[in-house]
Amino acid sequence: MVNIVDVRDVVVPIRSDIRNAYIDFSTMTVSVIALITDVVHEGRPVVGFGFNSNGRYAPQGLLRERFIPRLLEAARTDPGTLLDESGTNLDPDAIWHVLMRNEKPGGHGERSVAVGALDMAVWDATAKIAQVPLWRLLSDQSHGGDAVPRVFVYAAGGYYYPGETHTALVDEMRSYLDRGYSVVKMKIGGAPLDEDLRRIEAVVDGVLGGDAGRLAVDANGRFDLRTAVRYAEALAPMGLRWYEEPGDPLDYHLHNALSGGYAGPLATGENLFSHQDARNLIRYAGMRSDRDILQFDPALSYGLVEYFRTLDMLAEHGWSRHRCIPHGGHQMALNVAAGLGLGGCESYPDVFAPFNGFADHIAVEDSRVELPEEPGLAMETKAELYSTVLKPLAESP
Amino acid sequence: MVNIVDVRDVVVPIRSDIRNAYIDFSTMTVSVIALITDVVHEGRPVVGFGFNSNGRYAPQGLLRERFIPRLLEAARTDPGTLLDESGTNLDPDAIWHVLMRNEKPGGHGERSVAVGALDMAVWDATAKIAQVPLWRLLSDQSHGGDAVPRVFVYAAGGYYYPGETHTALVDEMRSYLDRGYSVVKMKIGGAPLDEDLRRIEAVVDGVLGGDAGRLAVDANGRFDLRTAVRYAEALAPMGLRWYEEPGDPLDYHLHNALSGGYAGPLATGENLFSHQDARNLIRYAGMRSDRDILQFDPALSYGLVEYFRTLDMLAEHGWSRHRCIPHGGHQMALNVAAGLGLGGCESYPDVFAPFNGFADHIAVEDSRVELPEEPGLAMETKAELYSTVLKPLAESP
Repeated sequence: MVNIVDVRDVVVPIRSDIRNAYIDFSTMTVSVIALITDVVHEGRPVVGFGFNSNGRYAPQGLLRERFIPRLLEAARTDPGTLLDESGTNLDPDAIWHVLMRNEKPGGHGERSVAVGALDMAVWDATAKIAQVPLWRLLSDQSHGGDAVPRVFVYAAGGYYYPGETHTALVDEMRSYLDRGYSVVKMKIGGAPLDEDLRRIEAVVDGVLGGDAGRLAVDANGRFDLRTAVRYAEALAPMGLRWYEEPGDPLDYHLHNALSGGYAGPLATGENLFSHQDARNLIRYAGMRSDRDILQFDPALSYGLVEYFRTLDMLAEHGWSRHRCIPHGGHQMALNVAAGLGLGGCESYPDVFAPFNGFADHIAVEDSRVELPEEPGLAMETKAELYSTVLKPLAESP
Repeated sequence: MVNIVDVRDVVVPIRSDIRNAYIDFSTMTVSVIALITDVVHEGRPVVGFGFNSNGRYAPQGLLRERFIPRLLEAARTDPGTLLDESGTNLDPDAIWHVLMRNEKPGGHGERSVAVGALDMAVWDATAKIAQVPLWRLLSDQSHGGDAVPRVFVYAAGGYYYPGETHTALVDEMRSYLDRGYSVVKMKIGGAPLDEDLRRIEAVVDGVLGGDAGRLAVDANGRFDLRTAVRYAEALAPMGLRWYEEPGDPLDYHLHNALSGGYAGPLATGENLFSHQDARNLIRYAGMRSDRDILQFDPALSYGLVEYFRTLDMLAEHGWSRHRCIPHGGHQMALNVAAGLGLGGCESYPDVFAPFNGFADHIAVEDSRVELPEEPGLAMETKAELYSTVLKPLAESP
């Protein structure tokens, strides 16, 4: 019988001198989880690691007030409720239901981040106990082993740095191409439209050889309908990769109105944190299953257990998984993309260190990245993250 | 120049041996806020009190990690940002924007509860500094002083107590009538349909003299569409006061489908925590402005500042404020109902003590309650709440 013997958490900053159209990130924090099991591999306990994705704050209070105590209480009093039928591994779905005991429906924010971070640690531990990479565990469960462990990734950046000039923006974007990305994303909406258009032109002409199909733009939910339409009219002739989160994430009416007039792909979903919210997007926002991009981030949204529900809902509505490219730039999204056959995942080459990027020893090539063969989420393959954050937490008394 | 000199918080249980169709309340907690100002009335500092409403947990971590520090930082470095133009009172709207600095759009849960509790304390302090009851402050601002400080209240109860029999349920409901309520509400969905129908009949026939128009029933979001419809078909001939929260709060499709076939009033909204979520309910759920009831609870939903946005949205969609009967049974909902002319508010005569009920010295008569003339929210008129929770917190070192 496997069991969970401890769950530790720590808050670390992901300090960054960036801002998007909505917030600045200088005070952003991340909760990191170490889930200690009593399984021993090669003389050491198997430890699952998790953390919350960027854009929301470390949910330490929620973790310590409700979710970690519920999990440890179950581990102490009724450990069988946390395990699969064989009793030899954890059951992420069963653990999810323990975490969500006595939680009311609706109100999907903050607690979805706490549960998402714990779910990540649970899946990491589960795959490590099974001694396979998570992407392979998922692939074996869902696809009969036909996963292609080579995932489309794009470089998200192009923020409004203090004192930014077009030269700095162009240099930043060029550096992503130098590092193997061929598709990049930049922020819009933090400057007037004509200045944003100049910034876009500088990148398309100065970096992408005139190919706007390799550039996505992201308004971070800032626009009202009038502004969103004004931008859409200006952006439409360019043929951009996609136009992301033009309006408030819950304003399905705005998205629906925009869908009618903007022929290019729209992308949204990183600020919808449950399958019910995702379902409302699909029901009401006029999203087009032949082109639009869905960016739900499992690490902000009650984890992979909930993400399965979202994928089931999408299938019922006739959407392919290829239209899903999760927000977040973390190993969890990468493993889910590889293991479940999503359309790709986001990457932040220059921000949110040391939580950004993928395995140190695997380079991005032509905007694709291979997955490592190490078990679990393979966060141990990121030396700085492992040595400065994960290892000290796992080995703390 | 007025200023805020401290914000204190404490977590207290609202322990109760009840469960509804979804959760049990035995571990439920409340965060209580004391907002200490430098205004002195009759030799004592003016203190605003707030707390979060029931059904969600005390948001202490969120309060201490983000919201209280932001408020105290502004009070220390730039107090003018918290004040009205005269500088002689707080400005709840301006304070709201300070609290929500660097918060991303979407994800409306948990933080909405923390901000709701702080907003309550801010309004209490603001009305106390103005030396008027909050309901009158709101009435003067919004209606030219024509408020009627006599509000419809109904008794919510009828939970599934351990070992409950119909006799106990009938006795409980009768005791509400003995205390001046003529409209009562009971839970459904925690038992099979035929048992729930027997419980309803026992109350209608045994307590309400056969008048089902004085009984509302509440499923707490538990039903899928098939079950919701099955209940609707069984309930329809009875002529109940309303049928509350049949399905998941975000399942607008379910509510819409139900609206078409159930002629009686439907009620929902207590688990929608922003004006954007409320707007989606109005846009997509087929709610009928001539009969349905909207139960958005300001204390769970970013407070009264956000509730004004919800009321503006409702007006744009042709809804009267009379259709709003907030969840929660707290003084804030009561004052908002009186001051803004809502349709009433909920009351919990027997549970969630000492946060339940209204001023000790004012009795409920014919399901109406008058508001006290004491300044602010008048929580000081509830002796147990004041002496055991509020006063110790305000006077803590």
